[in-house]
Amino acid sequence: MRHILIIGIGAGNPEHITIQAINALNRADVLFIPTKGATKTELAEVRREICARYLTRSNSRTVEFAVPVRSTEGRSYIESVDDWHASIAATYEALLKDELADGQTGAFLVWGDPMLYDSTIRIVERVKAQGRITFDFDVIPGITSLQALCASHRIPLNLVGKPVEITTGRRLAESFPHKSETAVVMLDGEQAFRKIEDPDAEIYWGAYLGTPDEIVISGRLAEVKDEVLKAREAARERMGWIMDIYLLRKGADFDE
Amino acid sequence: MRHILIIGIGAGNPEHITIQAINALNRADVLFIPTKGATKTELAEVRREICARYLTRSNSRTVEFAVPVRSTEGRSYIESVDDWHASIAATYEALLKDELADGQTGAFLVWGDPMLYDSTIRIVERVKAQGRITFDFDVIPGITSLQALCASHRIPLNLVGKPVEITTGRRLAESFPHKSETAVVMLDGEQAFRKIEDPDAEIYWGAYLGTPDEIVISGRLAEVKDEVLKAREAARERMGWIMDIYLLRKGADFDE
Ligand SMILES: C[S@@+](CC[C@H](N)C(=O)[O-])C[C@H]1O[C@@H](n2cnc3c(N)ncnc32)[C@H](O)[C@@H]1O
Ligand SMILES: C[S@@+](CC[C@H](N)C(=O)[O-])C[C@H]1O[C@@H](n2cnc3c(N)ncnc32)[C@H](O)[C@@H]1O
Repeated sequence: MRHILIIGIGAGNPEHITIQAINALNRADVLFIPTKGATKTELAEVRREICARYLTRSNSRTVEFAVPVRSTEGRSYIESVDDWHASIAATYEALLKDELADGQTGAFLVWGDPMLYDSTIRIVERVKAQGRITFDFDVIPGITSLQALCASHRIPLNLVGKPVEITTGRRLAESFPHKSETAVVMLDGEQAFRKIEDPDAEIYWGAYLGTPDEIVISGRLAEVKDEVLKAREAARERMGWIMDIYLLRKGADFDE
Repeated sequence: MRHILIIGIGAGNPEHITIQAINALNRADVLFIPTKGATKTELAEVRREICARYLTRSNSRTVEFAVPVRSTEGRSYIESVDDWHASIAATYEALLKDELADGQTGAFLVWGDPMLYDSTIRIVERVKAQGRITFDFDVIPGITSLQALCASHRIPLNLVGKPVEITTGRRLAESFPHKSETAVVMLDGEQAFRKIEDPDAEIYWGAYLGTPDEIVISGRLAEVKDEVLKAREAARERMGWIMDIYLLRKGADFDE
């Protein structure tokens, strides 16, 4: 029997890590780190920094691996994700087979929290279901980018007693402002907030949260929209990549 | 100028604490802990345990205080919360004035993450707006009960690329299953899941997550509803109080 730990490492600040995650890192014989060939070298750096700071046992090994890239050509969104997961599952299976002996513990370091828009849990379940390798697994939560966003803006996520929707750029139009008074948007490659015309909407935006490059902007959407778009574009050019998240809200705490 | 730190301490497991939170605890001259008169002694215990384990400076003080109780009599929900916040704000203002000298740092320890269904940020903003005491404040995120729920069930929060709604028992009927495929329900005093009749709905329920008393149950809602209700009632009787959260879901990862 092998053991797998799926460990949330926080969303950019190495101090986001929990004591539970540090203890889990130190239970692992092998640490699997998705960095090989990564263009976002700053992210790989956060993972290495975490290992350097918090690993206290000296007899564990680190295995860096390349995550297969999603191919969208001639496929629907769903098909492309499904194929992509299948090929990541093959990668994971090979890692477990080749790098982990029976009885050993392996850890996958996951950005933020493994429960939030991340497929490590799903893919590990897939490998398990294929039944060629026997293992059990545990999940260790980590600070998400959503929490980093609220903390940096020093705001509550929800209005008093009100719901919140977490969604993607692709689906924002279905949600805000008619369906939810508060929407958090992740994985937005199209800056879906551009199309929101509500005069009461407010935005709390953040990029590279928790890292030394963190940028935050907030205000009435109609007033700061252009500022966010410009800051985003300038940052993306400077860094070569961007990672951003935002909260949209309308209404106030004490209206029904 | 005084400094306030609003620190998320995680949702029950003392190992949920982050390095960032530990460092913040150790920056505080005074730690404000809402425990006096608390009936949920186990929760007060978690807070004390965190201080005992992670405080390394010896010259800080702990001030336990009683949180005013919400009075609902003759008031709408909104009025009762507004009045309640006003009286907590008065308590906070008195604490800052009496217990914290100019230039000192005070910390509020908040269950889970301060951004999620918690009013500490809001109330600190209220005290600030009253303008009688000058201070700045920072927010440190913490692992939420929602994350503890997903980690214990070892499940992703969202279906692939799909949105998630976080809501309260009072509002669940507005949301699931017609509005959201995944709903997380907190602050539910009425077991709102009882009224959901959808044959495809699944539930992932957890109580006292992260503590030695943790209970989790999952399955098709129609099949496990009674089991959850029974387990919940038995636990509430045994412990004298309960703290539970659940996720409802229908649909699967790869349907559109
Ligand atoms: C694949 S999802 C992973 C989310 C991660 N599991 C979490 O818990 O935050 C990636 C998305 O998370 C958001 N994100 C992650 N880290 C971020 C950060 N440090 N700053 C801003 N956004 C971030 C962005 O919206 C990005 O598109
Ligand atoms: C006032 S809210 C505070 C939430 C907290 N700020 C967080 O981040 O989880 C209290 C609600 O959180 C949920 N909750 C908090 N801790 C929990 C735990 N350890 N187990 C189950 N539910 C919990 C319950 O739904 C409870 O009604």
